[in-house]
Amino acid sequence: MILEIAQIDVKPGSEAAFEAAVTQAVPLFKTAEGCISMELQRSHEKPQRYRLMVQWRTLEDHTVKFRGSDAFTQWRALVGPHFASPPEVEHTSVAVKGF
Amino acid sequence: MILEIAQIDVKPGSEAAFEAAVTQAVPLFKTAEGCISMELQRSHEKPQRYRLMVQWRTLEDHTVKFRGSDAFTQWRALVGPHFASPPEVEHTSVAVKGF
Repeated sequence: MILEIAQIDVKPGSEAAFEAAVTQAVPLFKTAEGCISMELQRSHEKPQRYRLMVQWRTLEDHTVKFRGSDAFTQWRALVGPHFASPPEVEHTSVAVKGF
Repeated sequence: MILEIAQIDVKPGSEAAFEAAVTQAVPLFKTAEGCISMELQRSHEKPQRYRLMVQWRTLEDHTVKFRGSDAFTQWRALVGPHFASPPEVEHTSVAVKGF
């Protein structure tokens, strides 16, 4: 299992609209092949900074299948206008499963 | 509920020792007041980069109680020697709970 962590900084004042757009986009992830979960986290220290956390069955489910799909185009159309800069995307997997 | 995300870059070659130290430190978090979960994620793109993800009941459970405890001193004694640079710590909370 792979965790996608996308750090997204939004334009000042667009926080509520961005969160609404992500809410609207939930079904795009829910129906994506290999997508296990998604949620949006918001930073306390930098309130215009978010982290989209998406669990994928495999890396390719995100980087190949999802990014090559119509759903990705729709996702970016919904949220892209709120981005202050390109998202920084990283993939991780569990090294130590604590509790 | 608060998610602590600590980005930790370790010294080259110390990955296995760092992961072992984090495993050894699990009980320090498990017994900490307000600590709900912890796990260590490792980056695919930058294999010396980790993200410690810890869920806390409140921000203060981490920043005041845990950081002021003996457990924190023990935690840093275990993992600190492997740090390539000071960790970058951020706190987030859920903005959109997808699925």
